[in-house]
Amino acid sequence: MLEDLKKKVYEANKLLPKYKLITFTWGNVSAIDRESGLIVIKPSGVEYDDMTADDMVVVDLEGKVVEGKLNPSSDTPTHVKLYKDFRNIGGVVHTHSRWATIFAQAGKGISAYGTTQADYFYGQIPCTRDMTKVEIENNYEYNTGVVISETFKGLNPNQMPAVLVKNHGPFTWGKDAFDAVHNAVVLEEVAMMAFNTEIITNSSVNSMPKSLLDKHFMRKHGPNAYYGQKNIEG
Amino acid sequence: MLEDLKKKVYEANKLLPKYKLITFTWGNVSAIDRESGLIVIKPSGVEYDDMTADDMVVVDLEGKVVEGKLNPSSDTPTHVKLYKDFRNIGGVVHTHSRWATIFAQAGKGISAYGTTQADYFYGQIPCTRDMTKVEIENNYEYNTGVVISETFKGLNPNQMPAVLVKNHGPFTWGKDAFDAVHNAVVLEEVAMMAFNTEIITNSSVNSMPKSLLDKHFMRKHGPNAYYGQKNIEG
Amino acid sequence: MLEDLKKKVYEANKLLPKYKLITFTWGNVSAIDRESGLIVIKPSGVEYDDMTADDMVVVDLEGKVVEGKLNPSSDTPTHVKLYKDFRNIGGVVHTHSRWATIFAQAGKGISAYGTTQADYFYGQIPCTRDMTKVEIENNYEYNTGVVISETFKGLNPNQMPAVLVKNHGPFTWGKDAFDAVHNAVVLEEVAMMAFNTEIITNSSVNSMPKSLLDKHFMRKHGPNAYYGQKNIEG
Amino acid sequence: MLEDLKKKVYEANKLLPKYKLITFTWGNVSAIDRESGLIVIKPSGVEYDDMTADDMVVVDLEGKVVEGKLNPSSDTPTHVKLYKDFRNIGGVVHTHSRWATIFAQAGKGISAYGTTQADYFYGQIPCTRDMTKVEIENNYEYNTGVVISETFKGLNPNQMPAVLVKNHGPFTWGKDAFDAVHNAVVLEEVAMMAFNTEIITNSSVNSMPKSLLDKHFMRKHGPNAYYGQKNIEG
Repeated sequence: MLEDLKKKVYEANKLLPKYKLITFTWGNVSAIDRESGLIVIKPSGVEYDDMTADDMVVVDLEGKVVEGKLNPSSDTPTHVKLYKDFRNIGGVVHTHSRWATIFAQAGKGISAYGTTQADYFYGQIPCTRDMTKVEIENNYEYNTGVVISETFKGLNPNQMPAVLVKNHGPFTWGKDAFDAVHNAVVLEEVAMMAFNTEIITNSSVNSMPKSLLDKHFMRKHGPNAYYGQKNIEG
Repeated sequence: MLEDLKKKVYEANKLLPKYKLITFTWGNVSAIDRESGLIVIKPSGVEYDDMTADDMVVVDLEGKVVEGKLNPSSDTPTHVKLYKDFRNIGGVVHTHSRWATIFAQAGKGISAYGTTQADYFYGQIPCTRDMTKVEIENNYEYNTGVVISETFKGLNPNQMPAVLVKNHGPFTWGKDAFDAVHNAVVLEEVAMMAFNTEIITNSSVNSMPKSLLDKHFMRKHGPNAYYGQKNIEG
Repeated sequence: MLEDLKKKVYEANKLLPKYKLITFTWGNVSAIDRESGLIVIKPSGVEYDDMTADDMVVVDLEGKVVEGKLNPSSDTPTHVKLYKDFRNIGGVVHTHSRWATIFAQAGKGISAYGTTQADYFYGQIPCTRDMTKVEIENNYEYNTGVVISETFKGLNPNQMPAVLVKNHGPFTWGKDAFDAVHNAVVLEEVAMMAFNTEIITNSSVNSMPKSLLDKHFMRKHGPNAYYGQKNIEG
Repeated sequence: MLEDLKKKVYEANKLLPKYKLITFTWGNVSAIDRESGLIVIKPSGVEYDDMTADDMVVVDLEGKVVEGKLNPSSDTPTHVKLYKDFRNIGGVVHTHSRWATIFAQAGKGISAYGTTQADYFYGQIPCTRDMTKVEIENNYEYNTGVVISETFKGLNPNQMPAVLVKNHGPFTWGKDAFDAVHNAVVLEEVAMMAFNTEIITNSSVNSMPKSLLDKHFMRKHGPNAYYGQKNIEG
């Protein structure tokens, strides 16, 4: 079932080590088939070198395994919650990539200091609040999705395809699994540069001007986008 | 038309990922044929792995496409403005390379702290001023070239082949496309070292002595240059 | 003798350059056969490229060479002391990996700022005290083991498989040689991220909440662990 | 003439890009044949990929070319001065390696914070004073050697095989060309770690205890050295 999607999710997972976003098995990619409401996700704790497309696990929107001989990623309930609440997304990525995780550990969002960020993220990339003891002890992974969702009250997930989970690490998403991985790569890049922009200015730097943010985000993602070619990926 | 130059511009573009100056498609190289006044430039948003020499786009000094089936880089008007105003340059490079972009995001020029910089750049590498809302909203990419040009009032672009565009990233240039890429590599290297020179001294460091700057720049680029071999690249 | 274990120790040693944990010969891996009480360890100062499984040296729990034509690692007495005092460990690794060594040079433990650390280390990774002049001048390598052991008074080495030796570098351990190398990789990763978490917050950051630390450590290592697959490595 | 030494110097030069100590042609290795008093050195500004052993240049202790069709490295007078003043050294390396150059730009020596440094350098790695205008304008490269030599008044170059030239970069040396490259690699490693040791402690860290410095330097380089194997490189 969903063999095509399994292949794509498998390939998207293999991009995580390629782009040096993960160490060992510390990451996972999923994608959803919106028609059937079924999600394909990486199995838990399996080595990337040993993994095959066939090892991908199919779960439903309650997180129940529908197909697959291995346990799905332990982060599955978080992915499920994101697919439920962010209706336009088709793929989700979780990593512990270094610079994004540093911001998550610091409990800081990533301010927009330049056009690299503005080309993909419409403003500051947010960081979630501390989870409560109760949220951690019961349904921890599901509640991780709940606090992400809460953080996006007033934010448009289509214009802000990333979040930092406090003391944990980043989640990114996109129109499909590959797009979500693409955003995970960009996130790491802008995190590294934002970090050092703050350091070299002793944190006295301002965010980029709003008009420049608008210009760059909109020339790629707005109704009159003119970046790239009409018939190929931007 | 200009098949030779297309091949060179294509090859120079391929050096950007080789030298790790870019992520995905975030960069572009162009070159000008001064005789015909025609510029060859990378197409917009095309993957480096898929690109061929034939995909290079030819534009004139008004930025109008003369040949090519793809859209030229969205930064084309900036390149065009630089070729117009800096009459001796033959190639232009734009990247979002990490350390140079950090300085651009901080709105800081890169002071000359050592001979590595002095071998290529005759003093502090400048950063442009904030662009106005009007400049951003109308002809943004052309105006990017205008503010670069304005920044070089009183500076010799042949002795300072790089600029940081505020909240954006670096542009470099040179006698041809390869030379411009060479300078982009050097810029990233000196940016990384200048950054950390400021950090370890708590920003209390002085620029290098003027006589040492003169010595190093001139032994490579002055009338009595003695670095390298007479018949090969320095 | 112990040919199988020699092969494993050899292979585990070869992982150190693979994971970029060492420069030249600056590291060593050993493993113990608990039944015979014999330890297999890398020879001293031998190039990784030239080394064979046959070069591994066998020593007893007094550190005396039982088999092998080469000198064992000069750190052998430290390894021996760890096997004696930490009864459940099967492998030990020593490196001068960059970020862990920086904390060791600073004389600072690595606080737990995120789930990456909590997945492997149950709290702050400790740093040893200064060794005395007497401890350094007599039986230095053995005394290095003594101060590690002293540092673990009140700590469970099974829940904290790493230590920083002040002004020196890290030791890690695990159930076997591969597990010890795995922990050395994780240590370097969390050290880099903890370092920069402190930098970006001007050292004003708090350790992660206790309940989140408990959750992550226990979901992988507790009696009701549910991370990974039952029949494969987590 | 000196074909064997040319081959070794060529090979040692090729190690510089392998160990990522240089960008483009920014480095050079030489070696001396003490019997004849002749020095073999890399030619100036030649690409590493194009270079052959035959391109190496032979100069005498006055810096005059004795054999070779290419110009010797522009830093030749510095190398020559070092061979003259440091009678036991057999090879010299100059690079602009990043972390060592950062200290050189900051005008700071590299304090000994850990055993990694103590295994190779007996204390703080010194940085030269500012050169005077006169020293820069006349015989600059030779005077670079003069200030290095001056810096080593009271220091033993055999126990301190490296120096930072202010606002420039490092020189290292050793018993032959390969040993000098080895020390250049170690220098870069200890520079990176010393830098970050100072940063994470807000520069409040002390140098390592003298007894630990003695122990590590002497167990490798003292009369009773016991590190490594008797018959192979340590």
